[in-house]
Order: sequence, then C-alpha cells, then structure tokens
Amino acid sequence: MATKKSAKRTGKKTAPKKSTAKAAAKTKSTSKSVYFFGDGKAEGKGKMKEILGGKGANLAEMTNLGIPVPPGFTITTSECVNFYKKGKKLSPALKKDVLAALKRVEKALGKSFNDPQNPLLVSVRSGARVSMPGMMDTILNLGLNDETAAGLAEQSDERFAYDSYRRFIQMYGNVVLGIDSANFEHLLEDLKDSKGVSEDTQLKAADWKKLVGLYKEKVLQLTGKEFPSDPMQQLWGAISAVFDSWMNKRAIEYRRINSIPAEWGTAVNVQAMVFGNMGDDCATGVAFTRDPSTGDKIFFGEYLPNAQGEDVVAGIRTPYPINKAGKKPQDKNNPISMEEKFPKCYKQLVAIYKKLEKHYRDMQDIEFTVQEDKLWMLQTRNGKRTARAAVKIATDMVKERLINDKEAILRIQPEQLDQLLHPTLDPAASKEVIAHGLPASPGAATGQVVFSSEEAVEEVAKGRKVILVRVETSPEDIQGMNISEGILTVRGGMTSHAAVVARGMGKCCVVGCGEIHINPMTRRFSVGGHDIKQGDWLTLDGSTGEVILGQVATVKPELSSDFGQLMKWVDKYRKLKVRTNADTPLDAKTARSFGAEGIGLCRTEHMFFAEDRIQAVREMILATDHEGRENALAKILPMQRGDFIKIFREMKGFPVTIRLLDPPLHEFLPHTQEELQSVANGLGVPLSAIEEKYETLKEFNPMLGHRGCRLGVSFPEIYDMQVRAIIEAAAELIKKEGYKIKPEIMIPLVGHANELKLMRENAVRVAELVKKEKGVRLTYLVGTMIELPRAAITADKIAEHADFFSCGTNDLTQTTFGLSRDDSQKFLPTYVEKKILPNDPFVSLDQCGVGELIKIGVKKGHDTKPNLKIGICGEHGGDPASVEFCHKLDLNYVSCSPYRVPIAKLSAAIAALRN
Amino acid sequence: MATKKSAKRTGKKTAPKKSTAKAAAKTKSTSKSVYFFGDGKAEGKGKMKEILGGKGANLAEMTNLGIPVPPGFTITTSECVNFYKKGKKLSPALKKDVLAALKRVEKALGKSFNDPQNPLLVSVRSGARVSMPGMMDTILNLGLNDETAAGLAEQSDERFAYDSYRRFIQMYGNVVLGIDSANFEHLLEDLKDSKGVSEDTQLKAADWKKLVGLYKEKVLQLTGKEFPSDPMQQLWGAISAVFDSWMNKRAIEYRRINSIPAEWGTAVNVQAMVFGNMGDDCATGVAFTRDPSTGDKIFFGEYLPNAQGEDVVAGIRTPYPINKAGKKPQDKNNPISMEEKFPKCYKQLVAIYKKLEKHYRDMQDIEFTVQEDKLWMLQTRNGKRTARAAVKIATDMVKERLINDKEAILRIQPEQLDQLLHPTLDPAASKEVIAHGLPASPGAATGQVVFSSEEAVEEVAKGRKVILVRVETSPEDIQGMNISEGILTVRGGMTSHAAVVARGMGKCCVVGCGEIHINPMTRRFSVGGHDIKQGDWLTLDGSTGEVILGQVATVKPELSSDFGQLMKWVDKYRKLKVRTNADTPLDAKTARSFGAEGIGLCRTEHMFFAEDRIQAVREMILATDHEGRENALAKILPMQRGDFIKIFREMKGFPVTIRLLDPPLHEFLPHTQEELQSVANGLGVPLSAIEEKYETLKEFNPMLGHRGCRLGVSFPEIYDMQVRAIIEAAAELIKKEGYKIKPEIMIPLVGHANELKLMRENAVRVAELVKKEKGVRLTYLVGTMIELPRAAITADKIAEHADFFSCGTNDLTQTTFGLSRDDSQKFLPTYVEKKILPNDPFVSLDQCGVGELIKIGVKKGHDTKPNLKIGICGEHGGDPASVEFCHKLDLNYVSCSPYRVPIAKLSAAIAALRN
Repeated sequence: MATKKSAKRTGKKTAPKKSTAKAAAKTKSTSKSVYFFGDGKAEGKGKMKEILGGKGANLAEMTNLGIPVPPGFTITTSECVNFYKKGKKLSPALKKDVLAALKRVEKALGKSFNDPQNPLLVSVRSGARVSMPGMMDTILNLGLNDETAAGLAEQSDERFAYDSYRRFIQMYGNVVLGIDSANFEHLLEDLKDSKGVSEDTQLKAADWKKLVGLYKEKVLQLTGKEFPSDPMQQLWGAISAVFDSWMNKRAIEYRRINSIPAEWGTAVNVQAMVFGNMGDDCATGVAFTRDPSTGDKIFFGEYLPNAQGEDVVAGIRTPYPINKAGKKPQDKNNPISMEEKFPKCYKQLVAIYKKLEKHYRDMQDIEFTVQEDKLWMLQTRNGKRTARAAVKIATDMVKERLINDKEAILRIQPEQLDQLLHPTLDPAASKEVIAHGLPASPGAATGQVVFSSEEAVEEVAKGRKVILVRVETSPEDIQGMNISEGILTVRGGMTSHAAVVARGMGKCCVVGCGEIHINPMTRRFSVGGHDIKQGDWLTLDGSTGEVILGQVATVKPELSSDFGQLMKWVDKYRKLKVRTNADTPLDAKTARSFGAEGIGLCRTEHMFFAEDRIQAVREMILATDHEGRENALAKILPMQRGDFIKIFREMKGFPVTIRLLDPPLHEFLPHTQEELQSVANGLGVPLSAIEEKYETLKEFNPMLGHRGCRLGVSFPEIYDMQVRAIIEAAAELIKKEGYKIKPEIMIPLVGHANELKLMRENAVRVAELVKKEKGVRLTYLVGTMIELPRAAITADKIAEHADFFSCGTNDLTQTTFGLSRDDSQKFLPTYVEKKILPNDPFVSLDQCGVGELIKIGVKKGHDTKPNLKIGICGEHGGDPASVEFCHKLDLNYVSCSPYRVPIAKLSAAIAALRN
Repeated sequence: MATKKSAKRTGKKTAPKKSTAKAAAKTKSTSKSVYFFGDGKAEGKGKMKEILGGKGANLAEMTNLGIPVPPGFTITTSECVNFYKKGKKLSPALKKDVLAALKRVEKALGKSFNDPQNPLLVSVRSGARVSMPGMMDTILNLGLNDETAAGLAEQSDERFAYDSYRRFIQMYGNVVLGIDSANFEHLLEDLKDSKGVSEDTQLKAADWKKLVGLYKEKVLQLTGKEFPSDPMQQLWGAISAVFDSWMNKRAIEYRRINSIPAEWGTAVNVQAMVFGNMGDDCATGVAFTRDPSTGDKIFFGEYLPNAQGEDVVAGIRTPYPINKAGKKPQDKNNPISMEEKFPKCYKQLVAIYKKLEKHYRDMQDIEFTVQEDKLWMLQTRNGKRTARAAVKIATDMVKERLINDKEAILRIQPEQLDQLLHPTLDPAASKEVIAHGLPASPGAATGQVVFSSEEAVEEVAKGRKVILVRVETSPEDIQGMNISEGILTVRGGMTSHAAVVARGMGKCCVVGCGEIHINPMTRRFSVGGHDIKQGDWLTLDGSTGEVILGQVATVKPELSSDFGQLMKWVDKYRKLKVRTNADTPLDAKTARSFGAEGIGLCRTEHMFFAEDRIQAVREMILATDHEGRENALAKILPMQRGDFIKIFREMKGFPVTIRLLDPPLHEFLPHTQEELQSVANGLGVPLSAIEEKYETLKEFNPMLGHRGCRLGVSFPEIYDMQVRAIIEAAAELIKKEGYKIKPEIMIPLVGHANELKLMRENAVRVAELVKKEKGVRLTYLVGTMIELPRAAITADKIAEHADFFSCGTNDLTQTTFGLSRDDSQKFLPTYVEKKILPNDPFVSLDQCGVGELIKIGVKKGHDTKPNLKIGICGEHGGDPASVEFCHKLDLNYVSCSPYRVPIAKLSAAIAALRN
C-alpha cells in the first residue's frame, strides 16, 4: 500500500519499477515482432509459418538454403492481431523494430531509403499461414518520390523510373488512400488520347513524368492531402494497409470457403524491390516444378520479358513458355522461351527448383524475377494442382523415395478426387466445337451461360447449373466460381487467377479463349457465327480447352494406374469399410468398379418409378380395399424380385442392405386426370373412388407423415411383398447359381423399439415361409435406420430387435434441426453467409448436434449388443470430414454414392493415419 | 450322475426323494393358493390385495371385522398367472386346496355341495388388484342340478328354485360353454308368447322348470355335450372361465385405458350364495357411504326387494332408494325405501357402513343382500366418485380428522379436476329441454348424436364431437364412452354401468331417461314431439339430468370453498410453479382466477388473426420490399403494444414470457382472390406481384420450414417491431401506472447457439433504444424455447446466450419422433391400439425419448448456468404424468392452458409428496 501511494505522489514521470521493466523485457523477448532475411542468412525458418506466414517462412528458408532472395524482413502474424487489438494502430515498439530491420536491408544492398543517389525501393506484401492468392493487398515500388525517382532514372532509365513512379502512386493511392483506380486509368486514357496513341508502350518518359504530376494532383483533389513523399510515412501507411486488407470482403469470403480462422492474421513482408521491367535484360515469371495439370515430371512455367510479376499473374498479357518443352509446335522456330532468351538464368533456375523440390519434398510453385540478367527468387510454396496431378506427383514421389506411402495418401485432398471420378465428354457424342481456349482445369461441364458471379448465385438458387463466362476473373468472382459447373475466360494463361483458383476448386475451366467477344450490355457473347445469350446451354472440356455448343453426353472416367496404386495404399491403412448407396444394377456395377465393398442403402422405392411399374404401384396405393392392394402387389413382386437378382449378382460376395418402402405414398401418385382414370380402370373402380382416396393421402408435412415403417404398420402386405421379393431373389441365386448371399433387410424411420419388433416379426415370418417354400438354407439380417432423434436416444431398446444399425444422416439432420431439406434453400444460404451455421449441414455432418445424437445412438446400441454392426448412409457418407467423424466413432462402414466411393476410401485412410 | 441313473431305472412310480419333497413343501408354504374366510375369521386380510385381489382382500377384511359375510374362499392372483403358464389348466395342487377350502365352507354353513337335502350353492367371481367393474365374468347359483334344484325348491319355493336353475344354466352356458345368451333368451320369449304373457313375473314354477329342460336340450344341441350336472365339474369349469375372462377383449381394453398391467392376473372368489330374490323378505342393494356425486355426507344407495344383485347393477329394473333421505318428493308417502321396508336390516347396514368407512378411512361402495331378513355383506371397496365429491370428501375427512392434508391431496386424481374446471351450461342461455333423466355424472356436454360405440369412433376420427345415446351401456361401449363428450341412456340408475363408468371417466352422463325411444334401424330417437336423427346436435346437463335440443352456451365453473381449501394444501406442498399459456387478456384473466403464477407462453401470432389486424399482417408478409414491410409493421405495432399492456395488467406482479413470431408466414395468408386484391391495394402494388410472392411462400414441410427465429434472421424488422411493442408496453405501465414488470422475451425454434446470439443482440439493441427513448429503467430477460432436438443436445452452448429456457414439448415431440401432429391422426390411433406406443405422445410426454432429450437439455443448460430458469410449455404442462416428470427434473415451472392450471398444481403437489 505504502509503495503504491508514494509512487502516486511522485507523479507520472517516475521511471517504472524494476519489476515492471523486467516484465516488459520478458514480453518483448518472447514475441519478436520482425524477422530479417538477406545476405544468405535469415532469422526465421521454413517451419515458422504460424508467425511468419507461408511466404515469409519460405523467403527465410530459401535465404538459408543459399538461394538468391532480395533482402527484407517479415512482420509477424501476432503483430496483425495486435494491430486489430490496438484499434488498427502500429505500436511504437513495432516501428522501432521495423526501422532496425530496414537498416539491415539498406546495409545488405548498399542502398538507402530516400537516398536520391542510390534509392532503396521495397515491396510490401501480405502472407498468411496458408496461401490466399490475390485476396489481400500488395504495394510495389515503395520509396519513390520526386527525388528518388530522379535518382532511379539516373541509375537506369528515365522512362522506366517514371512508369514505376506512376504505378506506385496508383497502387498506393488505391490500397492505402482508398482511391478508385479508375480515376488514375482515366487520366492515362486521356493522355494517350491527347497523344493520339493507343498502347502504353508508345508513351515516352516525359509522358510518364507528366502523368505522375497529374496523379498527385488527383490525390490532393480527392483526399485533400498531398501524396506522401516521405518513404517512412509511405512504409507505415503500406504496412497498415496490408494488415487492414486481412479483413476486406474478398479475404473474408475466401476464408469462409476455405475454413480459415480470422484469428490467424497475416504477416507482412517488406522486401527490396527487384525489377523485371527495367529493360530487355529483365524478366519475370512463375513456374511449377512439375506440371500442375497432369503431374508429369516436367519443369513447367511461364514468363514475360521486361515485365512486372503482376503482368503474368493477372493474365493481362499472355506469357511465353519458360522452356523449349513448353512451346507450342507453331512457335518451334521462334526463340521465345526463357531457356532460349536467358540461358544462364534459366540454368540457375533449374538448379534452384531441383534444390527446392528436394528440400520441401513436394511440388513447388515459384516466382522469380530477372533484373539486369541476375536471377532473384521471390517466392516458393507447395503448388496447387489438379487431382490427376496430385495423384501422379504423390505416387511418383514415392517411387523416387522422396516420400513414403502414408505421406502420399496425406498429400491428396479427398474432395479433389471428385475431378477424376466424374464423367468426361463422351468421345462418341457429336459435338459442335465453337471455340478453343487453354485447358486450365480438367473435367467436363455443362450448364447455362451466366456473365457474372451474382447471376450465377441467382440461377443456382433456382436449381440451375451454370457456366460462368468472364473476360477474366478476379477475387470478387470467388463465390460465383465456387457454385458454377465450369468457368470460361477470354483472357489469361494457365497461371492466371481463373486457372489457379479453378484447379484448387476442382472445377472444369477453360481460359484465354480470345476468340469470343462478350457484350455485357446485351448479355450475349459471339464467337464465329454463333450468338450465345444468357441461359443458353454450353459445354466445356477442361482437359482439351474445347468450348462446345449445347449439352453433350458424358462417359465415366478412366482411372490411371497411379490412381490404382494410391487406392492400394489407401486400402492398406483405412479401417472403415466403404459401401455404396445403389438403387439399380447399373449403380451397383459402377460402385463395384470404384471398389465399393457392398451396398449400404438400396432404396426399393426408386425402382417403383420405372415406367412399366408405376401403374401397378399406383394401383397398390389407391386400392380401396385389401384385395385390390394384394392384386397390385402381386404385379410388383416379380419386378422387385428381378431387380434384386440383378443387384445381388453385381454384388456377388458383398453384403447388400435393402431398405423397405420409405417415402410417403403420395409421392407415387398420378399427376394428371388421365393417369388417375387409368389407375381406376386397372383397379376396376369408379374414378370418384380413386379421387376420394387421393384426397385422403394429402399431408401437411409429408416428411413427418405416414411414411417409413409407419406404412409397414398400416399396410403389412407391402412389406411382406418386399421381403418375399428379397428372399425369393436370394433363394434363386443360391439354388441356381450357387452364390453366397446374406441379404440385409432394413426397416426405415423407426422411432420406437416396438415398431422394429413388429416389423421384424413380420419380416421373419415371411422370410421363413419363403425359405420353406423354396427349400433353401439362407441367413439374413433384419436391421434398422437410425434416422430419428428418438431412435438415437432409445437405441439401446431398439438394438434388442436389430441385427444392424444404419444411421440415416439425411433424415436425422432434418429432424434434429427441424429443417426440411426441400424448403431450407430459402434461408440456409443466408445462415451460412451470416455465419450462423459454419456450412450446409446436409453437405457436411453437423458434428456438434446431429453427430452428438449419432454418438449417443452408437453408444447405446453397443451397450445392448457390443458387436452390433453400425454404418451410415446418406450424402454425408462421401464427405471427408464426416467420414473422419465416423472413423473416430469406430463405425463399421460408411455408404455413399458410387462416384464418391474412392473419396470416402481416401478419407477413411487419412482419418486412420491422422488419428 | 449315479443317483440320476438309478432313479431313472427304478421307473416313474418311485416316490420323490426327500429333498424334493421338502422343496415342494417349501414352495407350497411360500405360495398359499387358497385363502378361506367365514365364521368371523379369515386367513387373508385387507392388505393382501396383490394376491387376493381387491374383492377377496376386502371380504377377508370384512370377515375379520366381524361383519356378516357369506363364507367362501379366494384363489390367489398367482394361480391366475400359473393358469396361463400351464396352458390354461388348473393344477392338481390347486384343485386339492380348493376341495379342502370347500369343505370348510360346507362346515361353516352346515350345507353340502350336491346335497339334495340342503344344497350348498356358490358364486364364482373375479377380483383383480384394482376394481374393473363388469369387465370379467361371474357365475351365480353354481351347484344346481336336477336333484339339488328339487331340494332347494323343497327348502324355499319351487318357482324361485327353477328360476335360479335356469339362470344358472344360461349364465354357465354363456360364460363357461360359450353359448350366445340370445339362444336362451329366444326360448324364454317363445315360452312367454306361447303362454300369452309379456313379463317374466307372470311365469309360474312349472314354466321355469320346463324352460330348464329346453335350456339343457339347447346346450346339448349346440355343444354336443350334456350340461354338466356334477357341481364339482361345474366348479372347475367356472374357475377356469373366470381366469379366462382376464384376457377377454373388454378386459384388455379396460386395462389399456386404465394402464393396468396384464401380468397382475385376477383372483377368483368362490363364496356361498345368498339370495335376495327368494321372496318378499329378501332384497339386494348397492350403497355408497357418502353421495358419490356431490360428496355430501349422506348414506346413499339403491336396492330392489326380491331381486338379485345384477338386477340393480345392470339397470334392468330401476331401483328404489335405500333410505327416506333418498326418496323423491312424489314418493314421500310411499314406503318404498329399505329404511322403511327392512328397518332391522337397514339399522344393521348403517352400523356396518360406519364401521367400514372408519376402518378404511375412505368413502365405501358396498353391496349387500338380505335373505330371509338376514343381512349379508357381499362387497366393500373405495367408491368411485365425481371430482366434486372427491374434493368434498377429502376436505371433509380432514375436518373429521380421519385423514391429514397430505392424504387429502393424494386422494384426488388430477385429471378428474377437469370436470370441475370446465364450463357448465349458461343459466341465462335459452334452452329447449326435451327430456329429463338421472344426473349421473356432472358437467355439460354438447355434441352430435351417435347410436353406437363404433359410430362414435368414426365420427370422432373426423374431428367431430359426439353424444353417445344408448338404451343401456355395457362394457363393450367403453371405447365409445371414452371418446364421447357425454352419454345418454334410456335405462339404468345412478349405479348402473353407464353412471359408474362415466363418473370414473369424468364424462357428463344422464341415465334412465325412459322418455326417449330409440329406433336403431333408422338411427333416430323420438321424445315428445321431437325426432332426433344421427348427427343432430344435442346438449346434456349431467348435473341436472336435462336433455336439451341443439347447442347451448356455457359458463365458467364456480369453484367451491372445499376446492379452495384443497388448493391451499396443494400450494403448501408443491415445489413446481405453475404458469399458463395465454395469448389474450381474457386468457390471462381466466388463468389468474385459477391461480396461475405467470404466463409461460404468450403466442404473439395468435393476436395477428383478429379481424382488424389480419390485413396489416398480410401486407407485412406479402410486401415485396423492405419499405412495404416497414409500413405494414408500423400499423401492427400499436395493436401489439395495446395487447401487451392489457396482458401485463392482468398479470401484475407475475412474470410474462412472450414468444416472438413463430409459425410459417403462409399461415396468415389470404384464402380468397378478393382478400389478395385487398392486400395488393393496401400495399399499392399490382395483384400479380402479390400472387408471385404468395407462390414463393409455399412450403413442402412448413413445420420444418421458414418459421421461428428463421423469420427473425431473414426479416429482422418483424422481431424488432415485436420487441419494441413489448418494451414500450412495459415502459408505459411502469411510467403511468407504477407497475413492476420484467418482460421475458422468448426466441422460438432455436437450433444453434448462433441463432440465439444474433436474435439476442437484435432484441437488446431495440430494447435499449426504447428504454432510452422512453426514459425508463426496466429489466427484461431474453431466453429461448428448447423445442428442437439439436437445441437440447447443444443446450450448453445455447445457454451462454439465454436468460431462461422453456421446453416446447409439442414441437420437440414432433421432431424427436419425426411425427407431424397434423398428419399423425391417420396412423397414431393404430399405433396406440397395437400397443406400439403406450399412448399418444402429444397428450402425455414420451419420457423415454422426448423426456430423455429434455433431461439432456436441462443438464447441459445447468452445466453452463447453474441457476438458469427452466420450464416447459405445451399441452404436456397440464398432463399429470408429465408434470411429475418435470418435478423430478427439478424444473422451475410448467405452463399449461388456463383451465388446466389447478390440475397442474395438484399434479405438482402429488409429485412432491410422492417423490
């Protein structure tokens, strides 16, 4: 107390007590805010992504590897968090550290900030833990003012110096001062008009210098303040602006799509500028250490001489291939490649990429610049790739002994496999190719044309499939790209925004299709003699770059031997079995070809819709008495039996779970008066009787109505017929074809143990009767869906009557949330957008809610029968996160749609390796 | 092993080993199968209801009390279970015990079975743990054959003897041999016709004797066997038949309605016959120790001279009052009462009833017979009574110090109170009384006439309210009575089947209305000049016996001071608070008059339907833009505020929970084209725009659709308006009238914590704004419904944003079962009938499923906030079993409809006393 009081009395200027000073020092030492790199040595390293971001960590790592990297420093991600904590302000401590690091950069290069003789210019870039390409802001050429620009002109070239200066003002004006770039673009256009020229290259040094003056006037006019000429002031503004951009709209949207927490923050990299646009001995480029589209072990890249990096990435100029191998045949004799034009640097680059790939043990995406014939590496990171490339690279690297089979598995994102598994265009189908672009992301896509991201959202909300057609894409288009079937751009190369993002999303994409002309006003595009308007059907082949008129038939994918190898490793490590949801013999066959280990869900009612059966089904439903129903059922029995025989044949040796009739009967009802009359005729009753019955079948909430086993309770003869069809089918195959079959009969929508008890008794009675009739020995199981909250909650009692459980996550999601899948699309997107829900619970299992109920159900089921077989069926069976959840719950299997079987298998292996 | 083998070798006739014999003896001693009573001493006692049944235990108890009871013995309920275990056979051991007991009866009376000189006749009756009046079979006069009948004739009177004999054959033929009674009735009718007489009393001894012969021929003809003449054979048959009747259809139905387990079994009472129909010095009767209708402390009963008990109970002859007090004014000078005609026996009976009531400490329902001026007691049991009587008797007995206040509470069945709380006929309403019957069970009922139980079931299934009109009722009518609003019979007295059963059910009932004539063929009845057909409206007043044409207005019940006293005791012992579900000021007022301690659920949308508001509500919903919606909301705001002011006033000093808009918007939509046009005019937009909007509001499953807080998320302005109305209303009362009000704002249909978080933020923002505007200090709570399984499962997270929880058991039942309340009536009755569900889960809470989820929700809610206030609202809040469940969960309150508040309070007190 005394100490405190005396401190107070001595006033504000008293030095802090020793203990306080110590604590401050301690805090500082545990959180270094700035990491220098340069001159072959860096304070950070590659493993420090969490605090240095991906780019910063890699710059440090590359520096430590002895690779030429322009010197600079990284401000940590923690400082980004501090920035927001302090009301978007840079702390004095941070500023001090930045100044110190800047001094070391100056020393490393022998250049100085604000030195008119030998000015140091820097870039200021963001860099989060994971790459968020193009999402946040970047400022180049920082450090320029009237004096240093003059000095730079002296050192190099006047035209270059003032072009760089005006670019800097435009970029800084936009990013830091918030001025729309169009203001600057207009001034440039006006100048060109006044000069009577159309290309930037036609402008001279004096023109750029004049433009710098006009730009500065514009800044003063719009902000009321002079453009900052002090490089330090420029630097503080730029660092703040990059931190600020972490919270811009497109970064938030990107994080939402990619599930990146906002709390991570971004690092800021301040690095000495090197110029690829200082003259003909300069260049800039982007490369992948292997082909990101095919995975082939070919050094693959693009570059532009005398250009800045953004020119390549933004797709404004179509770049040249980096090496001879990448050249198109028509360019064979044109020495446009870097290998030909910059042989020394290219050789150095090859040595570096090999070193980097070996060091990182993964395919790298690298950026470089050549300034006055000297090569500088600006970035390296694990490269995004197509599924095909991912599989090939992973299996190749195992062969090369760079990684082992477990690592290979963990290298593939299960969702990505979808690209490999979906049909491609049927080569036999006739197709009218109306244009060619670059094959940026493989696969085939058919949809109706839209011209903006907003239109895409609107149309998809109406249930349509769309192809997004753009001149070029930008980060604003992320949402539209995400929901489109495919993307077509007029401009840009294989490393353009559209190409990189589409590959990451696994979307079919064709870029750089310069033949087409978009008229945004009329919402049309023309190509050749064709005039395509919004809503017209278009097909893209992302593997060939073909743009095709209308809809085209597709065929199943052919899977590579690499894929087969990967799946062998997957099967070695995974614990979960993977079955398929298959309703027809064809589904069953497809699923087997993908390695499904049985059918987890065969929905018998889907067979009811076939044209030759629906009449009999309607007669069954609309029969006004038991006899009419029995007659109709007798017509359906042989059809069902035939289906089951075919499905059992396809699934020889694997289990097949058949769910008895589930949906409300009115789903099968006739829609027209003629159909009703035809049913009346078939039943031999007047139309009025049928109409009356029809009325009684209407329900307010059919999802919660007379369906599932409730139908089996009300109309036991329907389930009896189905059980008979199943057992007769099995009996026939056992007797005539010698198959081993153990059918699994599944009762849907059980909410109370007594329901299953009764349904089981009925099923067993019929099954035993058929066995006796047919004189066969066969075993079968009777189990149930766990798809109502009450079933999960009372699973211990239900298990007494069940040989197996299958968790029906679609319906369980509906009832747990009280959310109808059919109606939710009106508001669910808003929910995801407002972050009320992390994602659509019908796509990825809601683990906290629905998952918790499944946990309860599994536990209670196992309490009663420790060896009870439990799986899940429903869309979630093919969702990687949901599969991992099932693995952790120690379920026996997941069941998913045929095309997702490999995804589920890979997810299961990854889950097993991770947990 | 050696022992076993040698035993085998010595053959079957070897005597059992000593140890086996001992074990058998032990088994026998622990399970005595037959209990004798007679001669002032009984082996059993009153507390042995579980093994002797209610009747047997009471006969033993009465015997031990020194009350004259005809000697006999009781076969235990365990023997009934054995009977079914052994394939419906009587074991030799049981037969041996029965023979021994029979000897003791013979000795006690000095009569013998099959003794032509002095024959012993017995009755064989069922008797379960709880009374199941008329549900099982009874056989009287057993022991008669040609010889003993002659002997009985010798001893008493020939006519009586042969009448008894033919009754015995008919009863035995029906019950034991399964012959339809109509066969015997026809022979009797034929005989009467041939004699030209219409009444049984006109037949002579010789006629009865002749009829005995015809009856025996009929038995031979229909069964192929002679009617058994050996009394022992008769006895075994009768005992088996009574055991058998435990499983007859009506007994099963009765047990289902009353939740009595089938495993209990029935006892069988074999007792010496005494005859009330042996001559004019004989009589038989039924009495209650207090008035079972009013509860008044008046000895109340009916009797018939020279009659058998069944004549009184079956209502075939309308009986006389037991005492002068019970006589109608017009009979004043007619000495018809037992008090007058059998003064000695009556005096003895009065002494006995007083002894019994004091002994059992409850109102007794007794049966007696006078044979040759000697009084015999045949039965005593706690008497069924109306709610009014139950309350009066319980409170009177506390005053009399027979029982204490806790016992008084436990004497009232909460469900029964419904009788007291429902409206009675408005005395001011004009009514056309078309007939008078006996006021058998109080209350008023209005419904459409049906003439059979089956018709009642059919009509009620269509949503109609029915009055069941019958000549007399029988146990087959139980189901029909249970679902009818009221019952009207032509024949029978206050203790007839209809009267007793209706009182037990709390149904309004008028009996013995001999004026009406039913024509079952035309489905009409006539009375006076009126002709009433099926479907016509009819009103009954069960308190006056009036039968009234058409529908009559009703008024609220006036509650007695006894009721008030009972409620004071209830309030002393209960722990749960009881609130009400009230949507209007009138509801609130009614509930307060019943003692509601606040409003647990005020559904704001119910106010929307009023004629003066629906137009504005429709404009709000169909507005095509935000502005249109805001304008419409501005019209609704003052109306809502006005309602809240009135409700707050009624609930002065008590909490009021207001739920924001919940149902899907289309519930409010116009139904006609004119209404749509009127909305379009109101909004100033074309009809087509409104029609389009109308279409978009349609949903497949509205219960799982865009409703509850999902509306609040999509259209925040709606909830904002409602919160404003609530806070403005509270502010006005606080400022102008000095009330203390703490409104509770409740967000419906929350499934995810984030929903509540957002809705809470919005509500707090508006509430704080209004507080500032109005310059008042007031506190309010924001809480949520727990009505989705996901809400229960994630209640810990939801509780972070909630000041209270209210479990909405209606919706929670729907989603937990996946069962729409609107659609379930098509199959739910079948479920209850087939015993798949024990009862309708919308009526009584499904404790294993829905209850388990509530348990989870309550636990998780309290994990986050130990003092979180939690209640339930929904129909279950007024269901006694559900209230007990809530008590056990330690909830703070239940909320139910106003008329059920006292039921909930009583249930809460009973739960507290029991647990």
